[in-house]
Amino acid sequence: MKRRKMLKTAVTAVGAAAVASTFPKPGLSSNHKKWRLITTWPKNLPGLGTGAQYFADQVTKCSGGRLSIQLFASGEIVPAFESIDAVGAGTVEMGHGAPYYWKGKAPASQFVSNFPFGLTAQEYNAWYYYGGGDKLCDELYQDAFGCKYIICGNTGIQHPGWCSKEVDTLEQFKGLKMRMPGIGAEVMKRIGATVVNLPGSEVAAALASGTIDWVEWNNPYGEASMGFHRHAKYYYAPGWHECGTALELFVNSKAWNSLDDELKAIVIQCANSTNVVMLSEFQGRSGPVLQDFIKNHGVKIKMLSDEVLTKLGNVAGEVISELAAADKMSGKVLKSMAKFRTEQVAYSNTMETAFLNARNLPFKFPS
Amino acid sequence: MKRRKMLKTAVTAVGAAAVASTFPKPGLSSNHKKWRLITTWPKNLPGLGTGAQYFADQVTKCSGGRLSIQLFASGEIVPAFESIDAVGAGTVEMGHGAPYYWKGKAPASQFVSNFPFGLTAQEYNAWYYYGGGDKLCDELYQDAFGCKYIICGNTGIQHPGWCSKEVDTLEQFKGLKMRMPGIGAEVMKRIGATVVNLPGSEVAAALASGTIDWVEWNNPYGEASMGFHRHAKYYYAPGWHECGTALELFVNSKAWNSLDDELKAIVIQCANSTNVVMLSEFQGRSGPVLQDFIKNHGVKIKMLSDEVLTKLGNVAGEVISELAAADKMSGKVLKSMAKFRTEQVAYSNTMETAFLNARNLPFKFPS
Repeated sequence: MKRRKMLKTAVTAVGAAAVASTFPKPGLSSNHKKWRLITTWPKNLPGLGTGAQYFADQVTKCSGGRLSIQLFASGEIVPAFESIDAVGAGTVEMGHGAPYYWKGKAPASQFVSNFPFGLTAQEYNAWYYYGGGDKLCDELYQDAFGCKYIICGNTGIQHPGWCSKEVDTLEQFKGLKMRMPGIGAEVMKRIGATVVNLPGSEVAAALASGTIDWVEWNNPYGEASMGFHRHAKYYYAPGWHECGTALELFVNSKAWNSLDDELKAIVIQCANSTNVVMLSEFQGRSGPVLQDFIKNHGVKIKMLSDEVLTKLGNVAGEVISELAAADKMSGKVLKSMAKFRTEQVAYSNTMETAFLNARNLPFKFPS
Repeated sequence: MKRRKMLKTAVTAVGAAAVASTFPKPGLSSNHKKWRLITTWPKNLPGLGTGAQYFADQVTKCSGGRLSIQLFASGEIVPAFESIDAVGAGTVEMGHGAPYYWKGKAPASQFVSNFPFGLTAQEYNAWYYYGGGDKLCDELYQDAFGCKYIICGNTGIQHPGWCSKEVDTLEQFKGLKMRMPGIGAEVMKRIGATVVNLPGSEVAAALASGTIDWVEWNNPYGEASMGFHRHAKYYYAPGWHECGTALELFVNSKAWNSLDDELKAIVIQCANSTNVVMLSEFQGRSGPVLQDFIKNHGVKIKMLSDEVLTKLGNVAGEVISELAAADKMSGKVLKSMAKFRTEQVAYSNTMETAFLNARNLPFKFPS
């Protein structure tokens, strides 16, 4: 509490300074807002940090400085996991994070991130923009946090993890010490793994020393700098647990309502743009990094067996149903997403899946 | 020539009117630009027309009317296939279309659309934003048309077509009368089909009367209003021929350079936003429409056989290689895309494809 009060005082001072500061266009300074964007990532973390920075820069540019956004890394103003409170309280105006970080405060937020065996990034976007997702997410964030919700990025599908040994059967998952968060972790627990929670900074060392056997993080581009490929040889796939994780922008509701229509439109358009640009960064950069892992670092891709995936699917279905039954808003969000998913699975099977499989037929093609 | 001169005169008159018109903020009118966006689609055509309208509206909103964009349907100012000339000549400021429409003027533009057995929409975006695609496309459009190129939408994967009969073998494609454009059409010709070119307005009637056997258009959402499902029972998949067709915004270079940095940023951010929003519209709306075709109209999904797809892949590879060899810029664009595709196929196989297949395993899941 004391710290938050301190922060509020500091922000008021900064706010006053912003109003008084001089801008390149004289006479317009009173129309200029200087906002702070706190992120739950280190500055310029590949994909997540760079994506948030892209958003901040583009809003500043599009508004000609009428809404100038300065980005702060996790911990610079508040610890990452207190970001939603700081924004809800109006200590800072906006934040960028992953919805499932707030599951302890509002359980439905973990569905807003997507869920195991859920939607691909492309299907998730379809739900958000054309399946009522935007309204549902905003309803949740307004009620739970006093924040406006806007989608602002996607990691794409994430690898389920790195392991120093080969794990082929369900039996072999029993007792395996894993670093994995979210609904996926609950699923792994139920099939017998020991789930350990470790801050990002300690994960690589724990894997190197054998304190943990398995590390889940995100995808090749996001993991290259973490160095897991130096400590574990087997890189598992596919990413059943996070098949297209949505990232979020949350804006203090009062601050949001203080924006004129132009600035609101700019924030939404830049967030939509960041959505596709961030996913493209993960997708585009992960292709070559994966090849580098395989060709230059002796990494071996291990596909999870159908036996293991079927079990994980059944257990994930149970966990998700329980979460939806335990909380009214979770039930409402899952109902919308699950119905949408059923239609999308049928459509994607006919088209995207069948195409991706057809592309592997043995024909000759320019490369 | 005469018509173009006439158009130029007309535009000058409209341009003058725009400058003189009154705007809600008095005193600012001289800073306000009124631009015309010509599209190659009917107004509000599901997906393509609605997407272009979304772009125009968002730019107008974000700029507070400093750049107000009015949309014109195909034929309202110039015929669809003359749009790039009208924009290049400065008759109008901007246009929205599909790059392969300009293959007769600049063959490389058909690769800018994507190509058979090429990239998914998600992979295409990765190439465009993080694989050097944006610079290559812009280089082509500046040189060939005097236009700035910006990606502005994607149809996602398109169905290869509707047919009144079952076509299971390569032999059965011989002599089949098909309506299909682009590189896909050349591939079909080489396996023996008779390709017919028909304007959109005549396609459904030709299918109904048996003048043609097969119609390619785009996807369930884009096709619902065309009524093909009333004349043909078999809906083929997957979309080997257009696996994620990119749509474009082209802006007259001089007009583009007349924009200040804010307006340039707004146009780019709104085009990026339209890119993801349009794809989401096609993806989100196609799911339920496909179910409606199947459940309420007796439509049967027919998957192309591996024999047919392998042959199509081989012939597509030949056609694409020939096109790249025949034109320097086509070769340059294909080289970039084909290398990127090779990495992406490996990455998507490990992840997206394996996930989509895993999602079909027989586990119990909320629906």
